[in-house]
Amino acid sequence: MRKILTYGMVGGGPGALVGDAHRKAISIDNSARLVAGCFSRNPEKNKAQGEKLGLSADRCYANYKEMAEAESAREDGIDFVVIVTPNVTHYEICKAFLEAGIHVSCDKPLVLESVQAGELKRIADEKGLLFMVTYTYTGYVTVKYIRDLIKSGEIGDIRTVMAEYPQGWLYDENNSGGKQGEWRCDPAQAGKVNCLGDIGTHVENTVGTMTGLKIKRVLAKLDIVVPGRKLDDNDQILVEYEGGATGMNWSSQIAIGCDNGLRVRIFGSKGSIFWFQENSEEVVIAKEDGISHTIKRGYKVMTPGAAKYCRTPAAHAEGWLEAMANLYDSFTECVAAKKAGTFTMEMIDYPLIEDGIKGLKYVEACLESSQNGNVWVELKV
Amino acid sequence: MRKILTYGMVGGGPGALVGDAHRKAISIDNSARLVAGCFSRNPEKNKAQGEKLGLSADRCYANYKEMAEAESAREDGIDFVVIVTPNVTHYEICKAFLEAGIHVSCDKPLVLESVQAGELKRIADEKGLLFMVTYTYTGYVTVKYIRDLIKSGEIGDIRTVMAEYPQGWLYDENNSGGKQGEWRCDPAQAGKVNCLGDIGTHVENTVGTMTGLKIKRVLAKLDIVVPGRKLDDNDQILVEYEGGATGMNWSSQIAIGCDNGLRVRIFGSKGSIFWFQENSEEVVIAKEDGISHTIKRGYKVMTPGAAKYCRTPAAHAEGWLEAMANLYDSFTECVAAKKAGTFTMEMIDYPLIEDGIKGLKYVEACLESSQNGNVWVELKV
Amino acid sequence: MRKILTYGMVGGGPGALVGDAHRKAISIDNSARLVAGCFSRNPEKNKAQGEKLGLSADRCYANYKEMAEAESAREDGIDFVVIVTPNVTHYEICKAFLEAGIHVSCDKPLVLESVQAGELKRIADEKGLLFMVTYTYTGYVTVKYIRDLIKSGEIGDIRTVMAEYPQGWLYDENNSGGKQGEWRCDPAQAGKVNCLGDIGTHVENTVGTMTGLKIKRVLAKLDIVVPGRKLDDNDQILVEYEGGATGMNWSSQIAIGCDNGLRVRIFGSKGSIFWFQENSEEVVIAKEDGISHTIKRGYKVMTPGAAKYCRTPAAHAEGWLEAMANLYDSFTECVAAKKAGTFTMEMIDYPLIEDGIKGLKYVEACLESSQNGNVWVELKV
Amino acid sequence: MRKILTYGMVGGGPGALVGDAHRKAISIDNSARLVAGCFSRNPEKNKAQGEKLGLSADRCYANYKEMAEAESAREDGIDFVVIVTPNVTHYEICKAFLEAGIHVSCDKPLVLESVQAGELKRIADEKGLLFMVTYTYTGYVTVKYIRDLIKSGEIGDIRTVMAEYPQGWLYDENNSGGKQGEWRCDPAQAGKVNCLGDIGTHVENTVGTMTGLKIKRVLAKLDIVVPGRKLDDNDQILVEYEGGATGMNWSSQIAIGCDNGLRVRIFGSKGSIFWFQENSEEVVIAKEDGISHTIKRGYKVMTPGAAKYCRTPAAHAEGWLEAMANLYDSFTECVAAKKAGTFTMEMIDYPLIEDGIKGLKYVEACLESSQNGNVWVELKV
Repeated sequence: MRKILTYGMVGGGPGALVGDAHRKAISIDNSARLVAGCFSRNPEKNKAQGEKLGLSADRCYANYKEMAEAESAREDGIDFVVIVTPNVTHYEICKAFLEAGIHVSCDKPLVLESVQAGELKRIADEKGLLFMVTYTYTGYVTVKYIRDLIKSGEIGDIRTVMAEYPQGWLYDENNSGGKQGEWRCDPAQAGKVNCLGDIGTHVENTVGTMTGLKIKRVLAKLDIVVPGRKLDDNDQILVEYEGGATGMNWSSQIAIGCDNGLRVRIFGSKGSIFWFQENSEEVVIAKEDGISHTIKRGYKVMTPGAAKYCRTPAAHAEGWLEAMANLYDSFTECVAAKKAGTFTMEMIDYPLIEDGIKGLKYVEACLESSQNGNVWVELKV
Repeated sequence: MRKILTYGMVGGGPGALVGDAHRKAISIDNSARLVAGCFSRNPEKNKAQGEKLGLSADRCYANYKEMAEAESAREDGIDFVVIVTPNVTHYEICKAFLEAGIHVSCDKPLVLESVQAGELKRIADEKGLLFMVTYTYTGYVTVKYIRDLIKSGEIGDIRTVMAEYPQGWLYDENNSGGKQGEWRCDPAQAGKVNCLGDIGTHVENTVGTMTGLKIKRVLAKLDIVVPGRKLDDNDQILVEYEGGATGMNWSSQIAIGCDNGLRVRIFGSKGSIFWFQENSEEVVIAKEDGISHTIKRGYKVMTPGAAKYCRTPAAHAEGWLEAMANLYDSFTECVAAKKAGTFTMEMIDYPLIEDGIKGLKYVEACLESSQNGNVWVELKV
Repeated sequence: MRKILTYGMVGGGPGALVGDAHRKAISIDNSARLVAGCFSRNPEKNKAQGEKLGLSADRCYANYKEMAEAESAREDGIDFVVIVTPNVTHYEICKAFLEAGIHVSCDKPLVLESVQAGELKRIADEKGLLFMVTYTYTGYVTVKYIRDLIKSGEIGDIRTVMAEYPQGWLYDENNSGGKQGEWRCDPAQAGKVNCLGDIGTHVENTVGTMTGLKIKRVLAKLDIVVPGRKLDDNDQILVEYEGGATGMNWSSQIAIGCDNGLRVRIFGSKGSIFWFQENSEEVVIAKEDGISHTIKRGYKVMTPGAAKYCRTPAAHAEGWLEAMANLYDSFTECVAAKKAGTFTMEMIDYPLIEDGIKGLKYVEACLESSQNGNVWVELKV
Repeated sequence: MRKILTYGMVGGGPGALVGDAHRKAISIDNSARLVAGCFSRNPEKNKAQGEKLGLSADRCYANYKEMAEAESAREDGIDFVVIVTPNVTHYEICKAFLEAGIHVSCDKPLVLESVQAGELKRIADEKGLLFMVTYTYTGYVTVKYIRDLIKSGEIGDIRTVMAEYPQGWLYDENNSGGKQGEWRCDPAQAGKVNCLGDIGTHVENTVGTMTGLKIKRVLAKLDIVVPGRKLDDNDQILVEYEGGATGMNWSSQIAIGCDNGLRVRIFGSKGSIFWFQENSEEVVIAKEDGISHTIKRGYKVMTPGAAKYCRTPAAHAEGWLEAMANLYDSFTECVAAKKAGTFTMEMIDYPLIEDGIKGLKYVEACLESSQNGNVWVELKV
């Protein structure tokens, strides 16, 4: 029986969607209890949120540095911290908690540049700390099932991967995207890319997680479609993987009629696999005779590595929060094992800081390719 | 800001799916905290489960009667109880908690006979207590949206309703249904019906919730398809609603290839609405020109009564647990309002004991119809 | 190499949809050439149509009797006649051509009463003439494939069949159905039923063709939904087949959002088969593990009895006209074989007059059931 | 009333799929009658096919030159010729018939190089002859509907177009593609490209027909995936259109699970349109509120330019042969008008030789791009 862990949160103030999602995801399985936080730079909001979430007043901190120090000092300090602040702040906050010896779960995109991420990894490694980057979509049971199928050779050698993530919420110059749209398209807040960082990295990470393929080089066309915008909103990318497989990656925020359309189609020498985030309860597998087989989460054919995450029977749908909860399921298991001294690397089944670094290198290579007129750029390893 | 309530649970021991689902559903929104329980008749299992769930030892009770009395006596006693034991025990347990003055959430089917349900309702009404019957499927945001659309006249007068709930898990005489299949098909444990009580009542309740229609009479054919079985596993029913609308209800556990296929198609004089539980993030509406419109949970057109339950943006799927969580969202709001003296009937947005009674009367009428050779039987009001 | 046959047509004047469809269907495979006709009672229209279709003037007849006699007398008289007049006239016209010794293809519903159909069968049998009733939907390659699969035991014993045929074109009292809607709802022109005769018989025939099951008894509720209408527009029927399988049949013309929604779901002891007319290029088969397999027309797994009708490779869609053409493919082969003296019963792969009779008996039993308060009525064999 | 035309065919011997398809397509609407042919270089096969198709012996020619001359000389000579021979022979045959003054319908890909096509166009223009290139997919009613919608501004300015055409039939080195696969992958018979010429040109043509967009430049990656193959079997292409719209085109023959998956998604500033060849009876349109509207062929909202091609009501599926028949419908109308002296350019609603030329320039530019390391190559106008 696993002891319930405790955690703290930085960010996730009143009305913040992502912070709330992390809290709900952790709550579903009751894998950890929120006991500390620094939710907002605004003292009133911070206090109000702490009270609403049932924290004792002394663990609702005015700033993250104070929180990292204080929690590190307490005997009953938090077991890990969840960082859900805007991207630009991730680096400093992560660093503070790592240096304080606290395991970290940080939202993606991890940081702005891959060198920063490398630095965080270095500290984490030195201190023997766990670091999860919450690529939510890889938490789906069906993604884990696909990963296991491919590893087992079910579809032979992978030949090409068609991956895409179209959304439509930023289709309009008249601010269809609201406040979130504003900051995501503001270079000062979002960095050098908008769409590619926000959702293009999910494409890269989901394909990588499913297939195990490593990107060798990219040829990218990052476009600004909506007049007046300063960062990319439609990205069309050719990919070459090590070993010779190819692919096309498309991410877009101007695709009217698309909501959250992460879709991956993997074509191998002996079969194909089709997966669509908006229908994540299903996997379609085609074999050499062309017949498509529809397999639902929870069916008996699930691999053990996928089946263990099923909370409900097939067709009692699990959703996006449950996918995130699956990440925390493994992460908290690992944190608990660290505490108990029983941790081994094989226990890890969540996205690592290495994934975050890969994502940043993907972004950097795409940016370079696009700025140089859509030429091939190798990913720096 | 709502204060976090406390609750107790009867049933839901180690490995029990339904109890776990209720706990998870309540956890998602952190609307109440589990502080007391009587999880199993087996003392070891009971104790282990209490410890696992973080209860203090003195609130892990050996039997439900003791629990009802003790919690009622405590100043900090539970705000409500969740009853997730086998159906045959519901009546006595519900009664005990109601008599102890504690609000009740009870799994469906509520009890075995409608007279028992009427008795529970009488006690609850007398004591001013809230009573929720957890028809999970009516918690979906899309179900609430459909209910609001129909009420607003969007599809005119309802003419016919085609509703069904096929499953395949009991297709086989060789025990395809496992342990749950065994007790559900055992008259001693399940009562007079199997399929009709287990899922047929969901058909009746979902249609009733969406449309507001009341069943006038039924003509039912309850069949035992699998040789050797003692209770119905395939039910085909003609329905007449008050006001003249008609319908066909089908529920089945022998339908290979169907998992949890609750589907409702509502045909009105000005349009139609299509809903499928396995794709509950969508509603399809057809109007007089025949064009079908696909509306997803979270779209701006959602009615306020549906939109308020959205936790995540469109296409960040919510699932079955979230549907159940929506029931508890309203229920706990009402319980809190009861405590605060601010409760009004308009706050209620969850299935009532009246729904449980309707379900039992539906079952009783269908059974009578089927036993008498498939004749029309009026529902007793 | 088969010699190209010749045929005549009764009905199918300018603007008539069904006559045109038969001509196109026959043309696709060039299986017969139109050389005689009596297209309209209106002499000008008749003449114009004959000219348009390239007939010689002397074979464009003023009335069907004259046509039957003249063609029968010619040495190069037509090999068969296609009758596509309104239902009320079928009996007399069919009789005239049969008595003249000419093979007949007649649109459905065959005649108004099963006794008339029996009489036609008697004449045809006596004279050794072929008689096809054009239940178009059974011509689909996928329907033939399903028939072969079931016969081979692929899904075990059939347990229940859910069949339906919803349309929406008569949803409205304000004449949404145009001229065709008018006559179909006029007892003087359409007989005792509207919806049941027009499309309910397709449900019955398609299920029968696929499964080979014979209906033992029906319990029908034929409703008039649209105010002011005189014949049924929504039919909900319980069915019992010989051998114990059950079923629900629904046909409707008031189902907004449905166009031509003939759908059959067949549940057996070892698997299920799902077919939808509007997506007739696919068959979905589920087996005991719940996994659904999607098989397209033209795949290598097609049975020989289905494959031989494929004109185009998989996913080069064949449609409704091609389904009708398939009926004529077998019919003309049989007619040619009759001429050549090589005909055997095994060659027949089209709907027979017996199917037309079964359809009428189904209608008659349903009508009796509905008029008597929805009681079981056995089909007269 | 239009007089029935006569035509001849070159190619289309016994067992040839494409020739048979053209004949069936023309037969459906009886728009022309086959009276002459040169079906095979093999004299026996040629003769047998002529007899089977009911030709008089003197119009079954030993070679196409003789046929062109003889038919040109006859007073009742053919009104047009249909050329369905292998691609390498198209140029000479087309030229012979054009020079003989006969209108031409030629299968695609038109010829091997765009200069040849330009030469054919020059002759046709000089002689005032019509020339159709049978890009079958643009014949679909829904394609015409989409073209009309876009022209009317329904979705605003087009921003990006995602188009693809995956097939799986050549996935395997062990000859999964049969004889057709062999010649298509043989440079001697197929020229410089396989997949791109066979189906990639359909992608280009379908997008161009729907949107009216002209390609400015391409960046192409033509890959040989299956070991040992000599021509491309998987093509991934970035496109820039004049005016600034972008796109991705993918065509593949190694995509297991895909049959004939031509799919186009067009994203505009005010809406999007989705079309899938395998479900060509439907168009999905999304507007700024995100709601998807499903419109079926035959619905009242069809534009006149699409509606006029509907033979059957909505949901009485038309298929691939009917799409080709639609091309011939317009082509034969134009040929008849040419004969009658009433022809105007506005009557043309079929793919022109200009479309064939565009397709060849697209192929040539892609090939150059791919050979030069995936660089942008402008299309020569």
